[in-house]
Amino acid sequence: MSRPEKLKVGIVGGTGYTGVELLRLLVNHPHVEVVAITSRSEDGVAVADMFPSLRGELDLRFSVPDVKVLGRCDVVFFATPHNVAMRMMPELLAENVRVVDLSADFRVRDAEVWSQWYNETHVCPELLAEAVYGLPEMNREAIRTARLVACAGCYPTAVQLGMLPLLENGLVDDQSLIASCASGVSGGGKATKVPMLMAEASDNFKAYGASGHRHLPEIEQGLADMAGHAVQLTFVPHLVPMIRGINATLYSVLKSNAPSLAQLQTLFEQRYQDEPFVDVMPMGSHPETRFVKGTNHCRLALHQPQGRNTLVVLSVIDNLTKGASGQAIQNMNIMFDLPEAAGLNTIALLP
Amino acid sequence: MSRPEKLKVGIVGGTGYTGVELLRLLVNHPHVEVVAITSRSEDGVAVADMFPSLRGELDLRFSVPDVKVLGRCDVVFFATPHNVAMRMMPELLAENVRVVDLSADFRVRDAEVWSQWYNETHVCPELLAEAVYGLPEMNREAIRTARLVACAGCYPTAVQLGMLPLLENGLVDDQSLIASCASGVSGGGKATKVPMLMAEASDNFKAYGASGHRHLPEIEQGLADMAGHAVQLTFVPHLVPMIRGINATLYSVLKSNAPSLAQLQTLFEQRYQDEPFVDVMPMGSHPETRFVKGTNHCRLALHQPQGRNTLVVLSVIDNLTKGASGQAIQNMNIMFDLPEAAGLNTIALLP
Amino acid sequence: MSRPEKLKVGIVGGTGYTGVELLRLLVNHPHVEVVAITSRSEDGVAVADMFPSLRGELDLRFSVPDVKVLGRCDVVFFATPHNVAMRMMPELLAENVRVVDLSADFRVRDAEVWSQWYNETHVCPELLAEAVYGLPEMNREAIRTARLVACAGCYPTAVQLGMLPLLENGLVDDQSLIASCASGVSGGGKATKVPMLMAEASDNFKAYGASGHRHLPEIEQGLADMAGHAVQLTFVPHLVPMIRGINATLYSVLKSNAPSLAQLQTLFEQRYQDEPFVDVMPMGSHPETRFVKGTNHCRLALHQPQGRNTLVVLSVIDNLTKGASGQAIQNMNIMFDLPEAAGLNTIALLP
Amino acid sequence: MSRPEKLKVGIVGGTGYTGVELLRLLVNHPHVEVVAITSRSEDGVAVADMFPSLRGELDLRFSVPDVKVLGRCDVVFFATPHNVAMRMMPELLAENVRVVDLSADFRVRDAEVWSQWYNETHVCPELLAEAVYGLPEMNREAIRTARLVACAGCYPTAVQLGMLPLLENGLVDDQSLIASCASGVSGGGKATKVPMLMAEASDNFKAYGASGHRHLPEIEQGLADMAGHAVQLTFVPHLVPMIRGINATLYSVLKSNAPSLAQLQTLFEQRYQDEPFVDVMPMGSHPETRFVKGTNHCRLALHQPQGRNTLVVLSVIDNLTKGASGQAIQNMNIMFDLPEAAGLNTIALLP
Repeated sequence: MSRPEKLKVGIVGGTGYTGVELLRLLVNHPHVEVVAITSRSEDGVAVADMFPSLRGELDLRFSVPDVKVLGRCDVVFFATPHNVAMRMMPELLAENVRVVDLSADFRVRDAEVWSQWYNETHVCPELLAEAVYGLPEMNREAIRTARLVACAGCYPTAVQLGMLPLLENGLVDDQSLIASCASGVSGGGKATKVPMLMAEASDNFKAYGASGHRHLPEIEQGLADMAGHAVQLTFVPHLVPMIRGINATLYSVLKSNAPSLAQLQTLFEQRYQDEPFVDVMPMGSHPETRFVKGTNHCRLALHQPQGRNTLVVLSVIDNLTKGASGQAIQNMNIMFDLPEAAGLNTIALLP
Repeated sequence: MSRPEKLKVGIVGGTGYTGVELLRLLVNHPHVEVVAITSRSEDGVAVADMFPSLRGELDLRFSVPDVKVLGRCDVVFFATPHNVAMRMMPELLAENVRVVDLSADFRVRDAEVWSQWYNETHVCPELLAEAVYGLPEMNREAIRTARLVACAGCYPTAVQLGMLPLLENGLVDDQSLIASCASGVSGGGKATKVPMLMAEASDNFKAYGASGHRHLPEIEQGLADMAGHAVQLTFVPHLVPMIRGINATLYSVLKSNAPSLAQLQTLFEQRYQDEPFVDVMPMGSHPETRFVKGTNHCRLALHQPQGRNTLVVLSVIDNLTKGASGQAIQNMNIMFDLPEAAGLNTIALLP
Repeated sequence: MSRPEKLKVGIVGGTGYTGVELLRLLVNHPHVEVVAITSRSEDGVAVADMFPSLRGELDLRFSVPDVKVLGRCDVVFFATPHNVAMRMMPELLAENVRVVDLSADFRVRDAEVWSQWYNETHVCPELLAEAVYGLPEMNREAIRTARLVACAGCYPTAVQLGMLPLLENGLVDDQSLIASCASGVSGGGKATKVPMLMAEASDNFKAYGASGHRHLPEIEQGLADMAGHAVQLTFVPHLVPMIRGINATLYSVLKSNAPSLAQLQTLFEQRYQDEPFVDVMPMGSHPETRFVKGTNHCRLALHQPQGRNTLVVLSVIDNLTKGASGQAIQNMNIMFDLPEAAGLNTIALLP
Repeated sequence: MSRPEKLKVGIVGGTGYTGVELLRLLVNHPHVEVVAITSRSEDGVAVADMFPSLRGELDLRFSVPDVKVLGRCDVVFFATPHNVAMRMMPELLAENVRVVDLSADFRVRDAEVWSQWYNETHVCPELLAEAVYGLPEMNREAIRTARLVACAGCYPTAVQLGMLPLLENGLVDDQSLIASCASGVSGGGKATKVPMLMAEASDNFKAYGASGHRHLPEIEQGLADMAGHAVQLTFVPHLVPMIRGINATLYSVLKSNAPSLAQLQTLFEQRYQDEPFVDVMPMGSHPETRFVKGTNHCRLALHQPQGRNTLVVLSVIDNLTKGASGQAIQNMNIMFDLPEAAGLNTIALLP
């Protein structure tokens, strides 16, 4: 196959953590050229001045977002907070650009539910039906042809990949699911809030959003798609004094006719055997977030404490890679018929 | 009451983390004098040479354990790994010393169960019935007169205090309890194992012991005492890159006739209103481990996500203080009719 | 001496890190009562709501600063950024209150120099001559009777205590002094700046302010007082991914007739033998910041690498305690003829 | 040029941190195949079982070191503690293998000096003269044809690259050089010592080896090569609570006729303009260790505080990459006429 030219990529909102993570990966992507990266506040600033890790790797300056410029790209990533992408989306799609949105704007199909959790009215609900939820392990075929991919969020990715084989096969009580999750501080983005200061967040551990967190409707929607009906999940996130990484410890009650742990292990291995980025670790394993740091992998392990009827699935990802920018690139690779792992071959630092 | 002399205190196994934590607290305890601290390997070494934080505070040297010397103490603390205290206990009790054991040797009343989890035969099972489980909020009266107090473990303390009002009042399904817990690295003690190296444990998060952890039988025994019958708990511990602290996120299913969240909040507040070291935080709170760092407090908060029937209780302690040495001193204070908070008035560093 | 009543203490600017550190220490101070703590932004908020570590320890609310209220105190602490204390100072001193200023407003005696480094005009330069520099090891007698004590800064305390015996005795070349220092992130205060986010500052190390830092003129002034003439210091601070602590590694060239290392060790020990908060560790020691965490101690050690003529002094303090709030209380104790260590008996957590 | 086959690479001592770092980089190296990796203790264990970050990337098992097997390699890396490589070296060189030694065995040319610092007798001093010191920025031409390259150590690399242009040009007093350095904990290797436990090393900062450190003779030898005569360096290392990274803050006294700071900046830029892995940052910069984490770069910046005659050079590297395994691969690339940056194009994670 001849691939005469590199894909032209634009990034809206390049100053945040998902923006620089996109750049880190795209700079070494063999089939891609980043041609525009926007920031209203940093217009004209060299990207490598803000992110010295990119010195010598990228000769590009931030520019104000301009639909004309972005319209000449093959694909545009939105690495923005929620409530930005949806405002530019109709105009941008009209330019025949394909879009991968890393924000939450198009993940929840029900505009009412979205509004309730994000305290905003959705400005283009008509696109919600068209948007494809960007979790390749669920939606690979739909992603191939999508104009607009709404990348799965970080917690949702870790939880859904850990529960997918169970719910697809109806093996657990899906009305009493529990996801006790923990994230590194980069999950909070680059916003300067007191609780995210190192003096506050380090040498500490806490739950947050225990009464309700914005990722819940997204996760329950995805799990319902797997189960074929509505599910109930209790989701409690925690903040870990580390930079990157999400761990989901998933508790579910096995149905009385559920297979044995060894059979479940095999089921998981088979479900994911062709997935380039999901690794079912051997029985008895405990995945660690550092095993996937900076990589696009999700690593899973199964446990059945005391052989009782509660199954424990452990699921780890890097929130900025498989939980955001890596998954966005994986989606792009699928959309443009590139090798799915192109640009995503980094190996975790250890130690 | 006249209190003419200070209590003479001995510590067996003073070189570990619970040992130095005992010293930190006892040095400023107004009614106590530490007269002996043992270590076979460090015999003759000045304690302040090993722990420079104690320079100028404590003029004492490590000595080899000697029942004669310890026998002249009013109280002896065991700050040893399991399988040490039980070997000295009969001889020591024969000297009319009262003992507070911080190790696991006398926590589980069933010698068979103990042997199964600790891979040792219990050498003095006849003392198991006499030993009082050292969780003051459960057993204060029995502790007053006990010869031998088996201090509650770290995870068990956090979990039991969070579940006590629920189980005493039969408000939740006690056959499907879940404790998703997380501990700082000092919980692993001073043993030099690769996974506890800073290069391995920092900037990382992982579950461990997910298929079964030694603290399970202790916790289930305590919860059963509260419920009046056997319970089932799924307990998954995690390792947090922080030094001290335990967080227990407790999930339980409310019975259909259970009170409202506001009523549960009141119930918790009433249950603990006279407890000097249990703090029920306001509705909506998220306790953080740093709020109790270096102190003997447990701080709790209740949540009912989406108003569904799963209750979430958050419980934090310092694993070395309320989870070990502080609780041991609280037990000692009760045993010797001292003010229960004597020596335990430290306030957490913030930040 | 009869001491019928507790000192009435006011704190201006109680929401920052030096404010809460003052509270942590003053709550357990036997001769003090905190009667007012101000914050314009948090007026009416319970202090323990902002700092849950103080729940159950302090029943006080923030109030707007009011000279009438503060004027009824015996002593007022300023725990504010620079440029606040000097604006209230004349009015407050007129109320016959004694003041301990933790900010930089009155540390540098030369108003011109101060203006140059702080980019502000000094509004009450007439008080600069009266203000006593609050480093007790240098100025104890002057502190006793001072109306206004300007507490020594964090880096300046660590550096000056490490160099004091050398400069007082003229043993090193004081025109080529080097202080390579490192601070935990709490030194940056509670201000929300991107570089202080945990995602930016953790798992990282960097120099900052290498071309010039505001603490330089304060340090050089203090060193000049010791030497009896102007000195030259190269001062480079670094940011360490820890919460509290300062380490100063001090390099100086011994004069050709300087005493031996063993003699220097003795000289340091003698100079500080009556100082309650300066600990000269044994030859060959390496003080660690955790050895003084949360305490008012400075720990020092001397090295002479390869027996050459460069002397290395290592000096550690807790930037918020001996480097700020602890030292402020030590100054207060001296001013009011209280035991100098009152309220300052905390022992460092280890681990 | 045709390059029909991949280089066959062997690694002796693959279980430590420099071993796994070699693997991380070599797995993605386009011109290399790892054919053997040895460990006596882990013989037969799959490498990916010990390092789950390599799951799916490397299908190789540890084997006992065997000169026959290693002798069939094109190049062998020693990722061992000191005192191992020198024992196998003569036999291995006899097989016509080229060797890159990451340990300290062949770095110091004077066997007497080596013995004094490493407390071992050197077993093949006759090879010391042949060994080429593996700092490409100094010795690129000699490396090309070397049989045995002794890779520069971590601190030595950071210090030497920061001082090279100054000493080559005789611009500073080379008898009073100071290197105040700081390293992450991975510098201590995977050896299980109490001070390297996370409970001991985190939230802490300390100097160590202040009276003399093994890297001193290596550094002074390199600096002397640059200067053309013996130099004197005071070197004090510090331990930082981070995993990877070295910062060297270098102090030197400019000669009276030295050029201006701007001219020095230009001099540094010119000296390193063709170096693929040395980045002279703009005037006023503060390199951070995270800017080079996981990469083979050294980033430098110059400061002249207060315009006085002390020059400050800041130098950062990743101790495991440019300070060990990355540099080893750079050396290999040079030895085998491969593109010097092959396999070394990783970009630092930020955040």
